[in-house]
Amino acid sequence: MSTANPTKPSNATAMSSLFESIQTDLALVESRLQSELRHSDPFIDELAQHSFRFGGKRLRPALLLLTAQAVGEINDDHHTLAAVVEMIHTATLVHDDVLDEATIRRHENTVNARWNNQTSVLLGDYLFTHAFYLASSLETTFGCRTIGRATNTVCEGELLQMAASGKFLLSRDGYFAIIEAKTAALCACCCQLGAHYAGGDKQTLRDLEQYGHLLGIAFQIADDLLDLVGKEQTVGKSLGTDLAKHRMTLPLIELRDSLNPGQQQELRELLEAPNNENMATLLDWLQRSGSLQQAQNLANDYAQQAAEKLTSISDSPAKQALLEIAKASVSRYA
Amino acid sequence: MSTANPTKPSNATAMSSLFESIQTDLALVESRLQSELRHSDPFIDELAQHSFRFGGKRLRPALLLLTAQAVGEINDDHHTLAAVVEMIHTATLVHDDVLDEATIRRHENTVNARWNNQTSVLLGDYLFTHAFYLASSLETTFGCRTIGRATNTVCEGELLQMAASGKFLLSRDGYFAIIEAKTAALCACCCQLGAHYAGGDKQTLRDLEQYGHLLGIAFQIADDLLDLVGKEQTVGKSLGTDLAKHRMTLPLIELRDSLNPGQQQELRELLEAPNNENMATLLDWLQRSGSLQQAQNLANDYAQQAAEKLTSISDSPAKQALLEIAKASVSRYA
Repeated sequence: MSTANPTKPSNATAMSSLFESIQTDLALVESRLQSELRHSDPFIDELAQHSFRFGGKRLRPALLLLTAQAVGEINDDHHTLAAVVEMIHTATLVHDDVLDEATIRRHENTVNARWNNQTSVLLGDYLFTHAFYLASSLETTFGCRTIGRATNTVCEGELLQMAASGKFLLSRDGYFAIIEAKTAALCACCCQLGAHYAGGDKQTLRDLEQYGHLLGIAFQIADDLLDLVGKEQTVGKSLGTDLAKHRMTLPLIELRDSLNPGQQQELRELLEAPNNENMATLLDWLQRSGSLQQAQNLANDYAQQAAEKLTSISDSPAKQALLEIAKASVSRYA
Repeated sequence: MSTANPTKPSNATAMSSLFESIQTDLALVESRLQSELRHSDPFIDELAQHSFRFGGKRLRPALLLLTAQAVGEINDDHHTLAAVVEMIHTATLVHDDVLDEATIRRHENTVNARWNNQTSVLLGDYLFTHAFYLASSLETTFGCRTIGRATNTVCEGELLQMAASGKFLLSRDGYFAIIEAKTAALCACCCQLGAHYAGGDKQTLRDLEQYGHLLGIAFQIADDLLDLVGKEQTVGKSLGTDLAKHRMTLPLIELRDSLNPGQQQELRELLEAPNNENMATLLDWLQRSGSLQQAQNLANDYAQQAAEKLTSISDSPAKQALLEIAKASVSRYA
C-alpha cells in the first residue's frame, strides 16, 4: 500500500525522531485512514480527505503503537485501532472548530471556514460513526467499549467546558475535571488499547493507562499556555480562543488566586473585554505574577509523573520514545 | 423500575394501539434511557433529559421490539439495543435541528432554540458516543457493527442531502439515494437487530431488514409530504424546512418532470424565493398537477412492499402491529 496523498507522510513524520521505531506502522495507519475514508460521492470524498490534511502530528496513533511495542508486538488490530482513534480525534477537532469559530488549523482552512458550520457538524458525525464502525470490525467488544467510554468522556468534558465558559470563579478542581475528560481520557484510552492488544497484563495496562492520563493532563496545560502566549504562525492554528470564549485556564486561575479582591475585579473586567490593549496588560500580569511559570511547572510535574508510570516496563526504543513524548508534550514553544 | 418522568409514558403510548404487545418492554426501554442519561453534572443532566422530552413516538425501539417478538422472544439485549437506537435517533434529531435552524420539535423548544447551536453539537455528540458505549456492553460485536454501519450510512445520507441542496435538477435516483441512507438504513438496522437477537434465521433476518428498509422509504416520502402540506400545530414540529433549505423532495421532482421547460423555469424561480405568496402558488401547482397524489401513491406502494416482506413470518399480534405500522407510516395527516 502507498500513501496516496503527498502531504500525509510529512504529517506522520513531523515528530519522526520520536516515532522512528513505528514509521512503517504509522504509514500503514495513514494508508488505512486514506482508504477507509475514500467515498464514491465526490463531495463526501473531498470533505473526508480535507479533514485529514490538518489532522496533525498523529500523537494518538503514535501513543497506541508505541505502547503496543513497549509491551509486546504491534499487530493489525493496533493499526485498525490507531486509525479509529485518529478518526475520533479528527471528528472532535472538526466539531471544536465549529464551537470555537476557528478558521485555521495546521496551516489549513478549517472545514467550517472552507465550507460552513453545517458541513462541519455532519462531517464530524460521519467521522465519529465511521470510527465506531471500524472499531466493531475487531473480534471482541473490548475495543468498542474502551473507545466508546473514552469518547463519551471527551464529550462530557466539552460540555463541562462550555458550561464553565464565562465562570470567572471556576475552581482549580473544575479546570482539572474538564481537561481530564476532554483530553486525558482519549490519551489514556490509546495507551490502554496498545497494551491490551499486545497482550499486556493487568498491572501493565493500569500503568500505561495512567501514563496516558497524566500525559494528557500535561499536554492540555501546555496547550492552554500556548493559546495564551503562542504565535499563530509557529503553532499553525487559531489562538486566543480560550480568552475569546471566556474560558478560565490554569494560568488565569493561578493569577486570580494570587490577587486581592480589588485586583480580581480588575482582572475580571480585563477578561470581559478581550481587546488587544487588555490582552497586552493581561499577558504582562501573567508574566510578572509568575502564573505562566506556575502553570508550566505543573505541566512539567504531570509529565514527570507520566514518565514514572513507565518504571516497570523494560527498556526499549519504544519506551524511550514514550518518555521523550512526555518531555516534548510540555515544551512546545520552539 | 418506574418511569421517572411523567411525560415519558405518554410518548411511549402515543401509538399504543399498535404497540400494545410491547408496552412493558417499551416502559423498560424508557427507564433504561432515563437512567443511562442521568448525570452528576446538573447541566449535562438537564440537557440529556430535555432531549428525550421531544424524542417522540419511539418508532425505532418499537420496530426493534416488535420484530423480536414476531420472530421469537424479547430479551434484555433487545432492551439495551432499543435504548441505543433511540439515543442515536435523538442525536441525529438534535444535530438536524442545528442544520435546519428549527425551533420546535414535538411541541417543545429544540435544544438550539432553548440553549444554542454549540450546545446542540456537543449534546448530539454526547448522545452518539453514549449510544455506542452502551452497544458495546453486549457480548458480541454484532450490535456495534450493525449500528455502526447504519449510523454511518445515516450521516452519509445527511451529507448527500446537503450536497443536493439547491439542486433543482436532482434526479429521482438521487432523491432515493438520500432517503434510503438518511432514514431507511436505521429502520432496517432496528429490524435486523430485533430478529438477530431473537435467534431468527438468515432468511428471516433478510426479510425483516428489507421490511425496515422499505418502511423507512415509505415513512420518509410521507414525511416530506408533511413538510409541504402539514400543519405545524398538528404535526408538532417546524415545517417547510425542505423548501427553506432548497431541497427537492419527491412531490417537487414529480411536478418538475411534468412541466415544459418554460414552466420549469417558473417553478425554479418560485423555489428560489420561498415567501408566502410563492408557497401558495406552489401548493396549488402541486395539488392540481397531481404530484402530491403521485408521491402519496408511491409512499403507499413502498408501505405495501414492506408489508409483503412479512409473508413468511407466522401470524402474531407483533406481526399484526408491524403490518399496521406500515399502513400508519404513510397516513399521517390526521
